[in-house]
Amino acid sequence: MSHTTTYSEVVEAEGHLIDSQILNVVFDTVVKNHASFDVLKFDIGRSNDEPSSIAMRISAPSEPVLARVLEELVALGCRLSDPQDALLKEADRDGCVPDDFHSTTNHRTLVRLHGQWLRVERQRMDAVIVVEQGRAVCRKLRDVRRGDLVVCGVGGVRVIPEFRERDRHGFAFMATDVSSERRVEVGVARIAAMMEEVRAGGGRIAVVAGPVVVHTGGATYFQDLIRAGFVHILLAGNALAVHDAEQALFGTSLGVDLDTGKAIEGGHRHHMRAINMICRAGGLRPAVEQGVLRSGVMYECIRHNIDYVLAGSIRDDGPLPDTIMDLRVAQDRYAEALEGVGLVLALSTMLHGIGVGNMLPSWVKMICVDINPAVVTKLADRGSSQTMGVVTDVGLFLHRLAHRLRVA
Amino acid sequence: MSHTTTYSEVVEAEGHLIDSQILNVVFDTVVKNHASFDVLKFDIGRSNDEPSSIAMRISAPSEPVLARVLEELVALGCRLSDPQDALLKEADRDGCVPDDFHSTTNHRTLVRLHGQWLRVERQRMDAVIVVEQGRAVCRKLRDVRRGDLVVCGVGGVRVIPEFRERDRHGFAFMATDVSSERRVEVGVARIAAMMEEVRAGGGRIAVVAGPVVVHTGGATYFQDLIRAGFVHILLAGNALAVHDAEQALFGTSLGVDLDTGKAIEGGHRHHMRAINMICRAGGLRPAVEQGVLRSGVMYECIRHNIDYVLAGSIRDDGPLPDTIMDLRVAQDRYAEALEGVGLVLALSTMLHGIGVGNMLPSWVKMICVDINPAVVTKLADRGSSQTMGVVTDVGLFLHRLAHRLRVA
Amino acid sequence: MSHTTTYSEVVEAEGHLIDSQILNVVFDTVVKNHASFDVLKFDIGRSNDEPSSIAMRISAPSEPVLARVLEELVALGCRLSDPQDALLKEADRDGCVPDDFHSTTNHRTLVRLHGQWLRVERQRMDAVIVVEQGRAVCRKLRDVRRGDLVVCGVGGVRVIPEFRERDRHGFAFMATDVSSERRVEVGVARIAAMMEEVRAGGGRIAVVAGPVVVHTGGATYFQDLIRAGFVHILLAGNALAVHDAEQALFGTSLGVDLDTGKAIEGGHRHHMRAINMICRAGGLRPAVEQGVLRSGVMYECIRHNIDYVLAGSIRDDGPLPDTIMDLRVAQDRYAEALEGVGLVLALSTMLHGIGVGNMLPSWVKMICVDINPAVVTKLADRGSSQTMGVVTDVGLFLHRLAHRLRVA
Amino acid sequence: MSHTTTYSEVVEAEGHLIDSQILNVVFDTVVKNHASFDVLKFDIGRSNDEPSSIAMRISAPSEPVLARVLEELVALGCRLSDPQDALLKEADRDGCVPDDFHSTTNHRTLVRLHGQWLRVERQRMDAVIVVEQGRAVCRKLRDVRRGDLVVCGVGGVRVIPEFRERDRHGFAFMATDVSSERRVEVGVARIAAMMEEVRAGGGRIAVVAGPVVVHTGGATYFQDLIRAGFVHILLAGNALAVHDAEQALFGTSLGVDLDTGKAIEGGHRHHMRAINMICRAGGLRPAVEQGVLRSGVMYECIRHNIDYVLAGSIRDDGPLPDTIMDLRVAQDRYAEALEGVGLVLALSTMLHGIGVGNMLPSWVKMICVDINPAVVTKLADRGSSQTMGVVTDVGLFLHRLAHRLRVA
Repeated sequence: MSHTTTYSEVVEAEGHLIDSQILNVVFDTVVKNHASFDVLKFDIGRSNDEPSSIAMRISAPSEPVLARVLEELVALGCRLSDPQDALLKEADRDGCVPDDFHSTTNHRTLVRLHGQWLRVERQRMDAVIVVEQGRAVCRKLRDVRRGDLVVCGVGGVRVIPEFRERDRHGFAFMATDVSSERRVEVGVARIAAMMEEVRAGGGRIAVVAGPVVVHTGGATYFQDLIRAGFVHILLAGNALAVHDAEQALFGTSLGVDLDTGKAIEGGHRHHMRAINMICRAGGLRPAVEQGVLRSGVMYECIRHNIDYVLAGSIRDDGPLPDTIMDLRVAQDRYAEALEGVGLVLALSTMLHGIGVGNMLPSWVKMICVDINPAVVTKLADRGSSQTMGVVTDVGLFLHRLAHRLRVA
Repeated sequence: MSHTTTYSEVVEAEGHLIDSQILNVVFDTVVKNHASFDVLKFDIGRSNDEPSSIAMRISAPSEPVLARVLEELVALGCRLSDPQDALLKEADRDGCVPDDFHSTTNHRTLVRLHGQWLRVERQRMDAVIVVEQGRAVCRKLRDVRRGDLVVCGVGGVRVIPEFRERDRHGFAFMATDVSSERRVEVGVARIAAMMEEVRAGGGRIAVVAGPVVVHTGGATYFQDLIRAGFVHILLAGNALAVHDAEQALFGTSLGVDLDTGKAIEGGHRHHMRAINMICRAGGLRPAVEQGVLRSGVMYECIRHNIDYVLAGSIRDDGPLPDTIMDLRVAQDRYAEALEGVGLVLALSTMLHGIGVGNMLPSWVKMICVDINPAVVTKLADRGSSQTMGVVTDVGLFLHRLAHRLRVA
Repeated sequence: MSHTTTYSEVVEAEGHLIDSQILNVVFDTVVKNHASFDVLKFDIGRSNDEPSSIAMRISAPSEPVLARVLEELVALGCRLSDPQDALLKEADRDGCVPDDFHSTTNHRTLVRLHGQWLRVERQRMDAVIVVEQGRAVCRKLRDVRRGDLVVCGVGGVRVIPEFRERDRHGFAFMATDVSSERRVEVGVARIAAMMEEVRAGGGRIAVVAGPVVVHTGGATYFQDLIRAGFVHILLAGNALAVHDAEQALFGTSLGVDLDTGKAIEGGHRHHMRAINMICRAGGLRPAVEQGVLRSGVMYECIRHNIDYVLAGSIRDDGPLPDTIMDLRVAQDRYAEALEGVGLVLALSTMLHGIGVGNMLPSWVKMICVDINPAVVTKLADRGSSQTMGVVTDVGLFLHRLAHRLRVA
Repeated sequence: MSHTTTYSEVVEAEGHLIDSQILNVVFDTVVKNHASFDVLKFDIGRSNDEPSSIAMRISAPSEPVLARVLEELVALGCRLSDPQDALLKEADRDGCVPDDFHSTTNHRTLVRLHGQWLRVERQRMDAVIVVEQGRAVCRKLRDVRRGDLVVCGVGGVRVIPEFRERDRHGFAFMATDVSSERRVEVGVARIAAMMEEVRAGGGRIAVVAGPVVVHTGGATYFQDLIRAGFVHILLAGNALAVHDAEQALFGTSLGVDLDTGKAIEGGHRHHMRAINMICRAGGLRPAVEQGVLRSGVMYECIRHNIDYVLAGSIRDDGPLPDTIMDLRVAQDRYAEALEGVGLVLALSTMLHGIGVGNMLPSWVKMICVDINPAVVTKLADRGSSQTMGVVTDVGLFLHRLAHRLRVA
């Protein structure tokens, strides 16, 4: 704190501050909040490989403004220059935390306890950090229990944003603005390379898929990917499984014959017949075992022991016995399945894509494919800076991807 | 059944067969299925007020094809000319029905029992018809219990499609193709007139709303509508209530200051703080009672005793204590709330809009407002022929609507 | 004309009145204009192959209303039952016609002269019909000269709408609603079949293409189609040729390297360098002859003697010497090139697609491919009922099409 | 130039390098081109008001690569640290320039001649700089004449990018990502303030408008703006004037009655009748003088002596006598009208909006309003960094704008 009416604090940051546009955002944040900055020290990286570092004094007209600015700067990767342990406060009741709780980002975060920086586990955004048994863990608000020790304030917290790498894997293609006016084949090549790399390194690939994958005929190629071992987890809603089963049982999807493209009047009722048949079998797995369901995405998942989670929604018909209609359970099962995943492909599903994006740490890459640029923009905008978008037809995209991976 | 290799049946229909394009669809259906028709009798309505009637023999190369065509024609409003009672079969286990079950449309449906035509209750699409205690009722597949008597086959079932009225209320505007190149003010005038008419007749109006209503600043005018008694039911997701509370508590929505439009860096965490505060209060209603929540859409709903249902989804943060995360319960609560409703407005929400569309009988009008024509098209396409779309900015739409209704 | 305050006229029509939804539109038209109809005679086609026929008396409260209704009914395919010759009036000055001129549709039209029905030549929409030397020809307003004899009023004019064929070529796929949720491969198969059929019959295929064909990498496959003889006419704007040349000369399109997908900062200036080089050569053809331009869409067109027309627009850089900047000339050259064409593919260009759609008679099929459903809807909506839309990625579409035609 | 295989040059830049993200783009540009940088000196602005400055050595593996990188860096605002005069070369033929010509950006540019920095006149993008009579002027390639002295290479050229101001006028709202999920009223307030400021300072406001302004009913409010003196220039296509005249003469737009919203079957021919009437009068101005045209946007423009330019396109019907069909002339007339303009509003027209964007220097703000986010993104992306987008319904937008300016 300095003179008469101004409140100030010194913060520091280092890394690829310019490349990653962090410095720019830091300055904007200060100015937007009607605070000011005074650069005390700045070392620019002399070349592309060297990091930069900065120290600056942040001054604000009031203590609450200073607190707000600092909170935001910490989320951006700055830390107080004055080292201190994180402030821990007890949750006063189940599902609630003190007002000044640290609301997590999806970036790697450290908290300082007893002079030691401790890495936070299960990093995800929009959670709180609970310290217990010498470990710091992200916890959803609803899972907080009275008495839990929650990290509060800005001291002793350090967020380490992913620095946008320049062109490793040639992601420049996808990192640039969302547009349908791009050569998708270039993107497909990059994605195929990432998938091969993740798999070669023993990593797992999760696919989040909407029913459009079936309607557009992409399911055939998706099944090729499953059979070839490029899909380890499938996260979807009831509709994907229903239309996949409809296609397997009746050859239609939403009442459209996929081979001839002819709309079948009244064929929309095929999906109800499909649901009825799967329900009678007792679910998808028994339907496969009983020989009722003999092809399709779900069939391949079951046959190849792919972990799948189907989450319910308000628009579901049925649902299938496999669909988890308690969304608390579904969210937990999604999060579990995503634990340690190396790459996520979100195919034509805004709802489930946002759900998954909310759960992922920022260092897990997520590819979003949708024909609607607004969906891709939205998925890429929700704090998930690791998201890369491809605006294209998902059916043809899967065709190209399967060919590129030489599995179709 | 007639000669050597052909299977045939005589069906009849009457009503505004030409205006409503039903005859056209009937003919298409027959031809697409590789069946044929032979018009036995056709009386055209001589003027606009008179109905037409038709009798025709449908012939198909096989019995299954004939059965499928007949099933589709019945759904379109044809009936077998040979009168017979509906075929009832027992459900062989919970949640399952015989394979040839009648899968319902959202049109008014009658079933013939003991020679009497009985109107089906709780009409909705994608359900089955169960007969018990002399009544025929729509039931969701998952609610069917072993032993329930289910209507099967095509005999003794009569579907009465809504005939597209010519220009009553001037709906021509909205009934035409979805386009953003329309004068929204004309649509607003029609919708306002409908709302006044429904209210004057003692009917109830349900609004299904997405969080974009808050982001676009439409919430202010929505609150005017609530206060003036034009909203009787609010159906939404967790996000609407969260961003509404965020706006009420912090003056931001998704971290954007609604009055100045300035993005607040890190302001996206305001929604987590809002959730925490509502959770501490014990929910929205206690938050209102304790004076924590003092404005906004949810505040007005609570203060004016508007029935609201918040349904969970996979992307929810929190959720608020009010949000129903068991989707089976949420669907049932939605359906209950919609019972007997006179008009539905769906504002910027594809997910909840489709959910509601699935539950409504075809004679309840549904207005869909969204800035994305694809959403409006999709809502209007899902068998919900009663849906009328307005492609516009929902914030400005609510402003115009509130002004037109003289409540803002 | 009949009794006291009502004005009426008897009209007749025949054909697939129900299938083609014409009867429905006729009834709507009468009612919307506050007129009424009285069906005097109706014969329904007994089966799918038989036409229907109708005679009805149209009554209106005033003579102008009756005239307007009759004008609209004639455009829909009705004709006055009372046979009479077409009314011819002289144009009173260049570029102008009498107020009651017949404004043409794109449907086959006949006019009655000296008791004989004469087929109108060069049929197109939004033109007038001029009779000279015993022939009736469509003429654009601006080409009318003082003294030309122009068809006026509704007598002696007969419009014969294309009846929507049921599923010949399996066009059901495309004829249905515009949606991105379709299996594009089915559409590709149909289009490939049409192209082969047109070519086998000695017909010509015109392609209208926007620069997105280049940006998306579709140009490679487009060149395969040209080389294989599936393109006879190319209609485009300056931008297609510029970006094609940029790609041929520098390997970029709009500054994006098409092989690696990397954005080249400042690479947007490549298109100016490309224009400069083509200008120095004296145009595209000399650039090919001089060995400056050695690949690309324009190169293949020139090498294979494909007729191409490049029409200017307000946003053009350059333009290339080949681009026709006088739009009157460009429109005439487009129309000439389209004379007698058998099929049109419009690829990612709303502007040029609408331009072409305005010039085509209704019996020439037009396929519109665009990733934006609004563009496809708009192209399909502008009175061009023969238009069929595919919502997909145009780059991948061309890949699939070239493969389906076995040319890539 | 330095050692064995590396070619290098020292460049300098100063200004708000971090805020404006220029430094970030500079680094990216170097790395993408496989060149490298070595920061020799960097002074960071200590506070928000102080500029930063940098000097760095750029090294590349070959001379062409170095040349390309330098060219791009100059376009971004860097200059060679070694001062030198601009290199002038003669154009060798009409419409062509030497290969290494400086292709202009839309930013303020200086060229050094005889040791003096001279400001380039008529700054616009995608042009060349010609020096004559001691002045440097932007010239379109097609207007270059043999013998003109053209600025080539990178020496003696200095580009001064607009530095993104932080929040002057509160443009933060619009500068952020294109989204339909914003409160339009905040944007309207900002735009109204800009319009008032421009007018108060004696500046002129140009409006570029598509026909959707008429279809959506926005024309009424647009006329209010014209009458109140908020529009000084109207740039549009033939279609705006045609549909405006159709509306004035028949009360319809594209055959839709604007007051009742009813589609008038066959009403699409009204626009041909409107064209015929205006043609007979001899054009829009004579039509106003003769009392034929008595309301509408064009009527108000003519009555209030607003300068209007109508540019033709391939899709035009008619055209009206006022429409300039020679696009070279139309581009020149657009550019002339835009000379010295203070603010541009582009309303629902991608084609004319891009055309205008290509002509404007970067310091003239351009507001783009469209219901399609892809259009707004595209307008904002084409090197026109000064563009700010509002995704909303243009009819309702004009209503709000007219009210905010207290003219409706």
